[in-house]
Amino acid sequence: VKLSKYAVTETNEIGQGVTIGEFAVVRAGARLGNDVVIHPHVVIESGVEIGPGTEVFPGAYLGKAPRGAGALARSPSFERRLVIGANCSIGPHAVIFFDVEIGDNTLLGDGASVREQGRIGSRCILSRYVTLNYDVRVGDGTKIMDNTHITGKTRIGNGVFISVNVSTVNDNALGRHGFQDEAIRGPLIEDGAMVGANAVLLPGVVVGRGAVVGSGAVVSRDVEPGTVVVGMPARCVRRVEAA
Amino acid sequence: VKLSKYAVTETNEIGQGVTIGEFAVVRAGARLGNDVVIHPHVVIESGVEIGPGTEVFPGAYLGKAPRGAGALARSPSFERRLVIGANCSIGPHAVIFFDVEIGDNTLLGDGASVREQGRIGSRCILSRYVTLNYDVRVGDGTKIMDNTHITGKTRIGNGVFISVNVSTVNDNALGRHGFQDEAIRGPLIEDGAMVGANAVLLPGVVVGRGAVVGSGAVVSRDVEPGTVVVGMPARCVRRVEAA
Amino acid sequence: VKLSKYAVTETNEIGQGVTIGEFAVVRAGARLGNDVVIHPHVVIESGVEIGPGTEVFPGAYLGKAPRGAGALARSPSFERRLVIGANCSIGPHAVIFFDVEIGDNTLLGDGASVREQGRIGSRCILSRYVTLNYDVRVGDGTKIMDNTHITGKTRIGNGVFISVNVSTVNDNALGRHGFQDEAIRGPLIEDGAMVGANAVLLPGVVVGRGAVVGSGAVVSRDVEPGTVVVGMPARCVRRVEAA
Repeated sequence: VKLSKYAVTETNEIGQGVTIGEFAVVRAGARLGNDVVIHPHVVIESGVEIGPGTEVFPGAYLGKAPRGAGALARSPSFERRLVIGANCSIGPHAVIFFDVEIGDNTLLGDGASVREQGRIGSRCILSRYVTLNYDVRVGDGTKIMDNTHITGKTRIGNGVFISVNVSTVNDNALGRHGFQDEAIRGPLIEDGAMVGANAVLLPGVVVGRGAVVGSGAVVSRDVEPGTVVVGMPARCVRRVEAA
Repeated sequence: VKLSKYAVTETNEIGQGVTIGEFAVVRAGARLGNDVVIHPHVVIESGVEIGPGTEVFPGAYLGKAPRGAGALARSPSFERRLVIGANCSIGPHAVIFFDVEIGDNTLLGDGASVREQGRIGSRCILSRYVTLNYDVRVGDGTKIMDNTHITGKTRIGNGVFISVNVSTVNDNALGRHGFQDEAIRGPLIEDGAMVGANAVLLPGVVVGRGAVVGSGAVVSRDVEPGTVVVGMPARCVRRVEAA
Repeated sequence: VKLSKYAVTETNEIGQGVTIGEFAVVRAGARLGNDVVIHPHVVIESGVEIGPGTEVFPGAYLGKAPRGAGALARSPSFERRLVIGANCSIGPHAVIFFDVEIGDNTLLGDGASVREQGRIGSRCILSRYVTLNYDVRVGDGTKIMDNTHITGKTRIGNGVFISVNVSTVNDNALGRHGFQDEAIRGPLIEDGAMVGANAVLLPGVVVGRGAVVGSGAVVSRDVEPGTVVVGMPARCVRRVEAA
């Protein structure tokens, strides 16, 4: 174990070969597996578990407690536990809330942010400044590219590709009637689907297995499996060609 | 007052019950109200005032001086003063410039960034990676969601909802004639209006009271109060239904 | 030279008049020119060179090594060298990878991120949360505004203006056939061109000299020099008027 100068390490659950950089903070009760690398200025709160071989880049903040301020409509509920798998890469300034689970070999880019009740599989990429709202599930081998926002209660399958600057929305009333949990319906994106850059998925839409949503499309109705939709509002233009 | 190890606290204007985390920097002349919580790695410059009960998450930077480098067209003018109200939540890695005022119970998400001459009301949410340019005014109870950009000189009323990945623009010439302050016209978004995901508001447009801009709409003309516009360019399709 | 308390300065290649803030880390072999200002919590790795008069704001991370985790399709290659010119401004939480060169008087906003093989000219602005993928070239005097993503292998000329929330894409197959380097074609944006907010440039398109892409346009074919295109898909509507 290599503890750098000025590192604050309150836990004693640290595996072999771990490196902790200068000015990092690792709170009591946090657990670091073998060969974990913690860069400078990282903060890891109590209740966080990091699997072997995972690298956490400068300024990342692991274990944020949701806090509403006066302004937040939804009262956050969460468990003080965050589990990150083996051989992950957590980018600089990434923020991961409590009550999140992340599989093995998954990469979070700079400033990626995952809120409570997030469940992310293995071999995923959440690229730079991707933001996931509360209660999002992502399968294995899925890629979500830079600056895309995934709204609360979205379900995303395996091998999905979501391009940059994509928006997903879960509330037709745009929050105007206050927060009514039963009215919130996130999109469902099935295995192998692809969503183009700057597309918008409206509340509750299903993007079927292997379907393709064109760049800039605004999807207001379900997309059949294996079809291609484009435009605003999005309409089906053809079936996906066999690869 | 709880000063953590390695905190650099140069000010003596600190209220009761304040916590300052490890590796935080609080410059001389900064003022912290009662029960303020400063997490690790926060930087607070001289001239910053933080109201009671406000929590500032790791890596936030409060009191940035605009600096042009050689490249910046506009020469920034500003006052070395930043006032944040009571019971606010300032997210990790948020950046707030000097010459900004923020009301009570307002929440800034991860990496939200507010430039000089910003005036933000109470009970607002500026979500993750929202960026406000210089000279923006936001009323009370307004929500601006993830990755949305608010351009310079925009005026936003009370109870407005602006969804994710929205763009606002203030310069029809796209900066090609150099910076001419009188030619810059930000949008005006009136009380209770709603702007859908990935919409664009072009320079100087007025979105009237209670109006709704559909997702992906490109708004090039004023939107009448209480109407719904969609499409590119945006056209009125109906009046807003009574709730 | 002013070294603040708790700064970790391992290099001895530091010019005159340099300031290094609290809790900054400057690794052995990094080079800082005269009058460089390093704010608190900055990390500068070995192999980074910073030109005279450049200011680096809190939390910036200079010299990131690309790391794939298990999930990354492309195996990154890079040189451990990062050169930043004179009188630049590197925003808080900006992230610059190794194998990048940046000219003089260029400004990076909060959280801007530049990956390996990036070459950026002088007098440019890369605004807040702009992300450049690997192997991007940007000429002189070009501005790329907040939250815009520039895809790998994009080429951008001099005096270009790219507005906010713009997407560029380099892979028609959306990554579905695995990574095939020869199939990747980034856009080419020629001198003086302008790209409006929330526009999308599809793989390999050429935006000709002085052309204008309207807000929200989805550009699937080359844009002739000096023309204006709008819509989804984008079509030519007129020639650019003489200024």
